Amino acid sequence: MDNAVSMDESPDVPRVATGESSLDRAVRVLEAFTPDRPELGVTEVARRAGLHVATASRIVARLADHGLLERTPDRRVRIGVRMWELAARASPTRSLRDAAMPYLEDLHAVVGHHAQLAVRDGDDVLFVERLSARDAVVNFSRIAGRLPVHVSSSGVVLLAHAPAEVQERVLARPLERLTAATVSSPAQLRALLAQVRRQGWALLPGFVHADATGVAVPVRDGLGEVVAALSVIVPNDDRAASAVPVLLAAARGIGRSLPVVARP
Amino acid sequence: MDNAVSMDESPDVPRVATGESSLDRAVRVLEAFTPDRPELGVTEVARRAGLHVATASRIVARLADHGLLERTPDRRVRIGVRMWELAARASPTRSLRDAAMPYLEDLHAVVGHHAQLAVRDGDDVLFVERLSARDAVVNFSRIAGRLPVHVSSSGVVLLAHAPAEVQERVLARPLERLTAATVSSPAQLRALLAQVRRQGWALLPGFVHADATGVAVPVRDGLGEVVAALSVIVPNDDRAASAVPVLLAAARGIGRSLPVVARP
Repeated sequence: MDNAVSMDESPDVPRVATGESSLDRAVRVLEAFTPDRPELGVTEVARRAGLHVATASRIVARLADHGLLERTPDRRVRIGVRMWELAARASPTRSLRDAAMPYLEDLHAVVGHHAQLAVRDGDDVLFVERLSARDAVVNFSRIAGRLPVHVSSSGVVLLAHAPAEVQERVLARPLERLTAATVSSPAQLRALLAQVRRQGWALLPGFVHADATGVAVPVRDGLGEVVAALSVIVPNDDRAASAVPVLLAAARGIGRSLPVVARP
Repeated sequence: MDNAVSMDESPDVPRVATGESSLDRAVRVLEAFTPDRPELGVTEVARRAGLHVATASRIVARLADHGLLERTPDRRVRIGVRMWELAARASPTRSLRDAAMPYLEDLHAVVGHHAQLAVRDGDDVLFVERLSARDAVVNFSRIAGRLPVHVSSSGVVLLAHAPAEVQERVLARPLERLTAATVSSPAQLRALLAQVRRQGWALLPGFVHADATGVAVPVRDGLGEVVAALSVIVPNDDRAASAVPVLLAAARGIGRSLPVVARP
């Protein structure tokens, strides 16, 4: 670290007098932490963020001053509770999650396994809440985890009700397969979206994992717009369809509990 | 906005060539959003963050580029789902919350009202999870909400097991009262902390609201250290104490479910 000063800038991130790039770099540092690697040494932060160690070290120190990062007893770094607090206390999904939670609990108590709530963010489905039983079937999603929108039952429900330009964008891209059952051609996906809109729910056996079936329904707000997907992940057998009525009832309850928002 | 360039800097925040202050200002902008005001116009962001409108507008634009803020259809601004995702996916309270959730669900199903999980952050208690019944008794805490550590049952449990210097710091400060029952003298608080350590739980009738009683127990990790408080908020009547055994049992279950971490 003798040459910390000369190492202080990454060549691909010019330092500008307006100072904008310190924010950009801070975001890259925050993005280095993942569910699999929630604690990192500064060298690893630097590598993942594409920054020199001295730069990463300086930004980590600033973020730690603000409580957005925390140092662990063994001198590694993790996301700070202040970061979680700032994000969670005014989160856009907060009122959705608050409205859904009692219904998600009831659904989980009745169906077991995994009950989850998801929203669409761009071409991904983002899981905002999940309740899991200790002996539940395998599930690849997790809270604050993402999946491409075409692979899971929640994603397919959200895509089926997304604006046409979002559907066309997803249909125009290569469709990644997770299992032999995952929908993989645009024609197949287009037919699936039409079917999901028509029947009001998606049941996708083995699309994400061969042993599991996702069953999802749309959650509509007071204006009838689809704002989320409610789903259960259950074993891939012929009882999965029995989850549809309880999901539909819970989704109606959540919709009624959502705060009424006037659209401009 | 004709003079946007000359307004571009707040006099109390000198622009420095190292660009550090753009990160500091970004944090102040993020802190402007609260549960009561999750959506703000840029002028309001500037006022709350103590920045000129043009500066706030520029920082809001950068944060929106990164998805940390989002624009609403009526041109206001709110915390973005990307901010929530970054904070939640690697949150330090994630493994605690994951371990606690099944027990919190069981507790909530049995006791009703509010079941909650909290950690200490400095001199505050921070609520990381809460399950609430629709007809539950009044509760002032909320997820990602804070209370001074001496007023609630969760806070008193966490303070009772905090390092001595934290206890002395809190005891040396004015003790804010929320009701006539809130502990308000250092001697009273010192006696309460000793009692809570001795009996293993806190039962505080009417400390936060006259109609409610908080009952809290410590959650210990595999090394016996108190890492969280588990609590229920129930009506302020003589049945509140019956929640103690189920709380103690649930806290033991959570402790066993926590990932084992080696301390350096």
